[in-house]
Amino acid sequence: MKSRVNTLKNSFEKEKLDAYIVANSTNILYFTNFLGATRLIVPKEGENLLYVYGVNYEDAKETASNCRVELVKRGEDADKRVASEVKDLKLGRVGFDTLNASSYLKLVKNLKGIKLKDKGKLVWKLRRVKDETELRHMRRAAELTSEGMKAAFETIRPGLREYEVAAEIEYAMRRRGSWGVAFDTTVASGVRSAYPHGGCTDRKIRKGDLVVLDLGAKYQNYQSDLTRTVTAGEPSSKQVRIHEVVREAQDRAFQSLRAGVKASDVDAVARGLIEKEGYGEYFVHSLGHGIGLNVHEPPTLNPETEEKLKVGNVVTLEPGIYIVKFGGVRIEDTVLVRKGGAERLTDVSYFLKVG
Amino acid sequence: MKSRVNTLKNSFEKEKLDAYIVANSTNILYFTNFLGATRLIVPKEGENLLYVYGVNYEDAKETASNCRVELVKRGEDADKRVASEVKDLKLGRVGFDTLNASSYLKLVKNLKGIKLKDKGKLVWKLRRVKDETELRHMRRAAELTSEGMKAAFETIRPGLREYEVAAEIEYAMRRRGSWGVAFDTTVASGVRSAYPHGGCTDRKIRKGDLVVLDLGAKYQNYQSDLTRTVTAGEPSSKQVRIHEVVREAQDRAFQSLRAGVKASDVDAVARGLIEKEGYGEYFVHSLGHGIGLNVHEPPTLNPETEEKLKVGNVVTLEPGIYIVKFGGVRIEDTVLVRKGGAERLTDVSYFLKVG
Repeated sequence: MKSRVNTLKNSFEKEKLDAYIVANSTNILYFTNFLGATRLIVPKEGENLLYVYGVNYEDAKETASNCRVELVKRGEDADKRVASEVKDLKLGRVGFDTLNASSYLKLVKNLKGIKLKDKGKLVWKLRRVKDETELRHMRRAAELTSEGMKAAFETIRPGLREYEVAAEIEYAMRRRGSWGVAFDTTVASGVRSAYPHGGCTDRKIRKGDLVVLDLGAKYQNYQSDLTRTVTAGEPSSKQVRIHEVVREAQDRAFQSLRAGVKASDVDAVARGLIEKEGYGEYFVHSLGHGIGLNVHEPPTLNPETEEKLKVGNVVTLEPGIYIVKFGGVRIEDTVLVRKGGAERLTDVSYFLKVG
Repeated sequence: MKSRVNTLKNSFEKEKLDAYIVANSTNILYFTNFLGATRLIVPKEGENLLYVYGVNYEDAKETASNCRVELVKRGEDADKRVASEVKDLKLGRVGFDTLNASSYLKLVKNLKGIKLKDKGKLVWKLRRVKDETELRHMRRAAELTSEGMKAAFETIRPGLREYEVAAEIEYAMRRRGSWGVAFDTTVASGVRSAYPHGGCTDRKIRKGDLVVLDLGAKYQNYQSDLTRTVTAGEPSSKQVRIHEVVREAQDRAFQSLRAGVKASDVDAVARGLIEKEGYGEYFVHSLGHGIGLNVHEPPTLNPETEEKLKVGNVVTLEPGIYIVKFGGVRIEDTVLVRKGGAERLTDVSYFLKVG
């Protein structure tokens, strides 16, 4: 974890920075192993300073690495405190990761003569390549996620409400050690399956419904993301056909994935097949996204992405076909980019029919 | 819900605004009943415009109220799109709720001649007073939360891991219809109970441990928040004493709560008692916070708050005493501010010993 901060510092010279303000709590976690701080200042030289309100102060002193923990008093303005510290350090050019407009304007006002630069990409450059510790946690998160999906397969039957299926999924993950859900579980059945972010409701699953199951466990704050689509009972030939196309699109994208390929090329493999089969207009989102401490993070896999994938990127591959008033099919795995190929971290069957 | 947008528009004259940009997705949900949009423009006159990416477009067209749904294309910059719309409307002064620095700077650049003002407080002024529909959802969320706590009481015993207790809590809420957890469930046992945001780990609960249980269900996106502290087995006299002080502090704060009182006075009632009993330095956070679509929202109940509480505010009352290396006790309910008093929405026993 120390090497992460050092890598950030090593970029200061090229970026002409004298310090960096980390405001995003997940970025702070990445550098210090502590979730619950307000700001982290990383100066070119000297100690890193972690600013924490009283509610988390004792925990931070116990847990946080690579920094000195500073108490922010109740009622004290953390931005003004940071500004005063930065002034004292007599810095000239300071980068930051993310700030809301009001914090940004407050810092600009209190830091006359100091240049404040949006350098959020510097942290993403680090975070998008996972190290061994991170991969260990992500593998565990993916295993727990796969267990959640198996519980869904065993549970789904006509008459059950969507949230009842979600309850079994989440329980299966949690009692095995998941730290919680990476995002709101989706159990979207029938016509609702045509909405990619359908969430789950009290709708009762009916015989023959498509049911999109999109779920993720967390482990050590690392997230996972997995989707399967099933039918409760015998599927129609149209359902079977669409499922086959999506399955094939995902598999071909997976086969094409390796370090050095352009993210847009991987997207094109899946999108091209779906278009060729006549469903192009129904694939309404990107092929996938990076995943780690956030469920959505760089790199993105879509037609517009310029970048190449690297060893250690963890991304989702999730083609889908969504037909309003009919239903939707999405198939997704969390996968690790390797030198000569890719590795699925999530691991469950791709069958369509359950029960 | 239409009246909410109209109340916002009614404030434009006094605030000298010609339009308002809503960027916070929860605020957009509050005005349109749709979660998953990128921006909402509320102009002084004419239709409200909701900007949605393709992945949520069909769902938005089906679900969103009080607005025309506009598709943002993949790769298109939503901020630039909004700027161009605002320009076309020939507006002079535009308020916004929350923007990150990069969106703010992009809008400023693209909106030459138009003044952009941080007016986030206008929406909070509305959201902090709950209407009947909101209260119905919050009551249900609180009921589900109370069921989660009862499951914890029935589950806790020495030897069980913290996450195993969390699994039972979350399962109990979810299978009764909770939309998920309002925040990461806390099951913090032993020395870990001294950290107010302790979360939960794989630590095994030991006989005599204090266990802080902090949990919340969601219903129709409305959140709830409830804390009890128990011991697995016979408590020590010091544990009993601290628990009594916290319990009494919470009850006195509750008795003092009604429309018209200053939030800081309610905090003072609890804090004063805890100080008098000699534990003042260990109450390291605010007495409470508003709750609704967000788990933490205005109004805050702490010594620094200037404002008075109003009918329809829903807040938490959560005094705590945290002694490092010994443990912590917190007791919290979600309560509704009424004319002559307050009403507890969460409802479970306050006993210390379980099992």
